[in-house]
Amino acid sequence: MLRCIMRIHIQNPNDDPLFVFSHEQWDSAAARAGDIAVGHEVTLGDTDNDFIAGMEDAEALVTDLGVALRVFPCRAPRLRLIYLTSAGLEKLAPFDQLPGNATLLNNSGTHSQKAGEFGIMAVLMLANRVPTLVTNQRAGTWRKQWGTTVGGKRLTVVGLGGMGAPIAAWGRKFGMHVTGVRTVAEPHPDCDAVITAADLDQVLPSTDFLALACPLTPATRGLLDRRRLGLLPPGAGLVNVGRGGLLDQDALCDLLDSGHLSGAVLDVFTPEPLPDGHRLWTTPNVIISPHTSVDEPASYNALSLDIFFENLRALRDGRPMPNVFDTSRGY
Amino acid sequence: MLRCIMRIHIQNPNDDPLFVFSHEQWDSAAARAGDIAVGHEVTLGDTDNDFIAGMEDAEALVTDLGVALRVFPCRAPRLRLIYLTSAGLEKLAPFDQLPGNATLLNNSGTHSQKAGEFGIMAVLMLANRVPTLVTNQRAGTWRKQWGTTVGGKRLTVVGLGGMGAPIAAWGRKFGMHVTGVRTVAEPHPDCDAVITAADLDQVLPSTDFLALACPLTPATRGLLDRRRLGLLPPGAGLVNVGRGGLLDQDALCDLLDSGHLSGAVLDVFTPEPLPDGHRLWTTPNVIISPHTSVDEPASYNALSLDIFFENLRALRDGRPMPNVFDTSRGY
Repeated sequence: MLRCIMRIHIQNPNDDPLFVFSHEQWDSAAARAGDIAVGHEVTLGDTDNDFIAGMEDAEALVTDLGVALRVFPCRAPRLRLIYLTSAGLEKLAPFDQLPGNATLLNNSGTHSQKAGEFGIMAVLMLANRVPTLVTNQRAGTWRKQWGTTVGGKRLTVVGLGGMGAPIAAWGRKFGMHVTGVRTVAEPHPDCDAVITAADLDQVLPSTDFLALACPLTPATRGLLDRRRLGLLPPGAGLVNVGRGGLLDQDALCDLLDSGHLSGAVLDVFTPEPLPDGHRLWTTPNVIISPHTSVDEPASYNALSLDIFFENLRALRDGRPMPNVFDTSRGY
Repeated sequence: MLRCIMRIHIQNPNDDPLFVFSHEQWDSAAARAGDIAVGHEVTLGDTDNDFIAGMEDAEALVTDLGVALRVFPCRAPRLRLIYLTSAGLEKLAPFDQLPGNATLLNNSGTHSQKAGEFGIMAVLMLANRVPTLVTNQRAGTWRKQWGTTVGGKRLTVVGLGGMGAPIAAWGRKFGMHVTGVRTVAEPHPDCDAVITAADLDQVLPSTDFLALACPLTPATRGLLDRRRLGLLPPGAGLVNVGRGGLLDQDALCDLLDSGHLSGAVLDVFTPEPLPDGHRLWTTPNVIISPHTSVDEPASYNALSLDIFFENLRALRDGRPMPNVFDTSRGY
């Protein structure tokens, strides 16, 4: 059996006080986790000196992507586990600054409830033509704009991980026909059909609502290029909670300007923050969310710690840790 | 047994071609309805002359509120049933222009699926702070704005009819604690608790989201006055799919301006259309929908006819017709 008592260092983010870990959060998570949380030596750091001191002997590091981007490479002789409190870690690519003998974990799953609710909300907003209502409202124009119910409509969800799966599940609860897109076309309990990206061209022409909820990897960058976006039928709507780089933003704006697409609800952009004067700010029928859609400060750290302990439990029990980040595939 | 073969006249609306009845819609509805749809003599009118001719011998009239407002009082010697394809008929009050020996029916139920989806969408939009995102977007401002999941949050739904009940039901499916408000505090399967308006003051201070989905009657006009709106806790959000007159719009604007309320999703206003330059157009954290939220043209007439036939079936079978509009209570 593998070792299960660890020297753990938690290094707090230094750019957003809403996501700073407290001793109370750790203690509560440890109480929820039970036996697997017992016996560890834990330090909690805020400053660079705290980090350097922690890395002298830490075997596990819990921190956020911003810290990881800043501090690695660094001396960390005993580090074996790096748990980052983000799901998409593409900014760390090609990952060679991380200690070579440490396993990288992400917090996939932390975002599931929030992503599912935001995702189905966005689909309902597209069906109810809220992006158009908002565009008319901005112009101070009262103009009847009818929407539709979503039952029987076709929802295509790209990515069936911690964000896409709950969006698909809600789609089914609302009576939608849900097609999932992932790397292997295996059946999924929340989808009517599952395809790979290779078959996307066949599905897009009958897609009423397209939700992007996958990581940005070499395989998914630009997946929704101008040609593929153009395959969506007139009136279709798009949700993006994945990454801005998944699609051709200029092509999206053109399709919204022409009215071919009825609306878009976007949480992610290239670049972020979306610059002043960027075309998307004034493209009609767009809702802009500032990359906050799938995070809830009130529960985020607690959920992240629960997932960290789940992984420790798997490690102790000799099972594969569910959140190992595969740096070669990029998720 | 009451007579069940009727002389039916359908008079089309003359202000919105999207809602004009076709012979095909009637035939399809009749096929769905089965035996109760057999044997009637049906005419379909578009012009005033069609209406006058139809009223010579019609026993049942199917038409919309706009026509009813325009044509009554009029000669209609055999008219016994007036089926109006709206739910809220307060514009016809005090109803004394209608033939005194005709029963008035509304189409309550037609809006249920659309209202449920719009209502829960609006609640999710409030939880996700979409009204604030849109306000920031209008200013071209990228500013992080976090939302919350809705599980465990408190939703109060005023009105548990064809619109409120499905909103309550979706609230429960999202794990919310739902309090319904109606004229009798009887338990309701879609609510955790049911109160009457007399107890609203006790519930408002713990309400995270307030959804108004009741008719406008002498009893509900101004129900959410300045004092009651002020009982909502800081950060609460409001949805109105009932009628503008249910609340004090100026007080609502004040509470949004001050930031006491976090947002409002409004489909109904006083007056409608909302005039150019009206304060609500520029009040922060408001989403304005032009009284289209609960209607879906693609299914509206079909659903209305299904409900009409349900009422004919009840009439024939000697049961109370479910859609009788009580002119004394106003719904």
